[in-house]
Amino acid sequence: MKLASLKGGRDGRLAVVSRDLTRAAYADDIAPTLQAALDDWAKAAPQLELLAERVEAETTTTFRFRERDCGSPLPRAFQWADGSAYVNHVALVRRARGAEAPASFWSDPLMYQGGSDNFLGPRDPIPLHDPAHGLDLEAEVAVITDDVPMNVTPQVARHHIKLVMLANDVTLRGLVPDELAKGFGFFQSKPASAFSPVAATPDELGSAWDGAKLSLPLLSSINGAPLGRPDAGIDMTFDFGQLVAHAARTRRLAAGTIIGSGTVSNRSADGGPGLPVAQGGVGYSCIVEQRTVETLVSGEPRTRFLEAGDVVRIEMLDVNRHSIFGAIEQTVRPC
Amino acid sequence: MKLASLKGGRDGRLAVVSRDLTRAAYADDIAPTLQAALDDWAKAAPQLELLAERVEAETTTTFRFRERDCGSPLPRAFQWADGSAYVNHVALVRRARGAEAPASFWSDPLMYQGGSDNFLGPRDPIPLHDPAHGLDLEAEVAVITDDVPMNVTPQVARHHIKLVMLANDVTLRGLVPDELAKGFGFFQSKPASAFSPVAATPDELGSAWDGAKLSLPLLSSINGAPLGRPDAGIDMTFDFGQLVAHAARTRRLAAGTIIGSGTVSNRSADGGPGLPVAQGGVGYSCIVEQRTVETLVSGEPRTRFLEAGDVVRIEMLDVNRHSIFGAIEQTVRPC
Repeated sequence: MKLASLKGGRDGRLAVVSRDLTRAAYADDIAPTLQAALDDWAKAAPQLELLAERVEAETTTTFRFRERDCGSPLPRAFQWADGSAYVNHVALVRRARGAEAPASFWSDPLMYQGGSDNFLGPRDPIPLHDPAHGLDLEAEVAVITDDVPMNVTPQVARHHIKLVMLANDVTLRGLVPDELAKGFGFFQSKPASAFSPVAATPDELGSAWDGAKLSLPLLSSINGAPLGRPDAGIDMTFDFGQLVAHAARTRRLAAGTIIGSGTVSNRSADGGPGLPVAQGGVGYSCIVEQRTVETLVSGEPRTRFLEAGDVVRIEMLDVNRHSIFGAIEQTVRPC
Repeated sequence: MKLASLKGGRDGRLAVVSRDLTRAAYADDIAPTLQAALDDWAKAAPQLELLAERVEAETTTTFRFRERDCGSPLPRAFQWADGSAYVNHVALVRRARGAEAPASFWSDPLMYQGGSDNFLGPRDPIPLHDPAHGLDLEAEVAVITDDVPMNVTPQVARHHIKLVMLANDVTLRGLVPDELAKGFGFFQSKPASAFSPVAATPDELGSAWDGAKLSLPLLSSINGAPLGRPDAGIDMTFDFGQLVAHAARTRRLAAGTIIGSGTVSNRSADGGPGLPVAQGGVGYSCIVEQRTVETLVSGEPRTRFLEAGDVVRIEMLDVNRHSIFGAIEQTVRPC
């Protein structure tokens, strides 16, 4: 089934959405919000599945579903922990500044605790206070868990993944170096993220989902020009089972925890950095990676960061070219 | 007024507590949970204040208040951002390992995003999976805000502080160096924190609260032996107005955001590290600081980290020696 939170109040209003994203039905009788459903998932999920069947069969009253009416599936969440599972991305960015990625990066997941108190909706503008901040997108896959016990194994962790969605992990590149140098991780450099209009249960993903990885191209574009289409199932050094287990190593995770994959990134066939889409490659899921490749190739970056009026779009299509999660489409707005 | 969340469900049940912490009344008619009250604080606060007056005057039905029945005031929160406002603490710990604190630490607040999906209650055991993790307490002051606009000034930020409480920011010292070396900040080294049984509005603190600092000794002990009694109003390089403004620089903060002070730490009169309580000093608010001073003085640490069965207590008394927030009192339990 596919779930969305229609805008309204701080937590939105839970709706079940048809597979083709054209129609929806409110789920108030089952749970008023997605967080409420996740808080009692074992009870709520079967009822939501029944409603989803009725929406699909058109045996219940539905309304026209519009992606622009959605908040993020969890408009606010109790936890947002973002991994960096495509280590290729990290190694590349480091290489551009003459640093090697430590060997441990390939065996021990990188993960940071993100702000989750209010996410942007999938069509909300991205506020930009200062163009010098270097505004960038990061196109990612993310999962939502139920309650995860402490110190769970990656194999068991897979079964706690209840929903899958896309993320735009908005990043202010200009603020990253100073924050990381302070040693306490990201804070001001990671303003509010946005998620896709719809979160889907893993069974909706068919054979593209192996229990811990989603093997489909993640499409991102800026002002209509393709930025990237890397396959989220390729070069994912740590799968979602490993990422959830990493997060739960020293504490249990509460229902509604969102775990992100980090920027999706594929290597080229020869193991080097991938080519831009314009040169026939799969491109990149963030501007900084494109700038990094430009620096490695020609000595300096050519692509600018996001500016007022720019439109970012992130989407994933199934094998029939139908949108699975709806599109994140956000315009940069000065504030 | 003083508020508590009695255990029950994921968010507890909101109660108004008498000033002397002996009696309480449920606030269900006003708001079922503290988060719900904070979501609509302008409307809920005056009604809660009225109830608090009736509790104080004994003109409403009350029940015996027991600190052990409490969860943390927000048993789960949408945001927990912990500063490190007592830069003396940071400088000391660095000095012990031969490193200088960068000059920027005195002008730009350190802050990390903490996990907030499920806090320990003030009397809940602290789970310890592996003694080698180096379990430590951190006694802190914390505030809860309402909705804070982006890029607010420190002066305006003060007015968004609605509640004050104490925190035990549980830390696994053995996991800190490797995590900080990775550059993404704390994650596994910061398991669930705990907060005091009661959160108080600033007006309850009288002249000890200047709008952004709480000037009273923060008492912590281990197995009944005093560890520290530093004054939270002394050597606080960044006050809560500055910490809230730092957190809000690039994004707004949602109601129910918790901002921590970091480990409270006072210098000695000569500007050096303070003496242990046993030697007439004000001591420390975490074990690692005591170990640091031991290392500086005698070449090696003598105090061990927490082990199974140890009892940690954190409290603050008013000028009449009455507990303001109730006590955090937690026993370390193997898991």
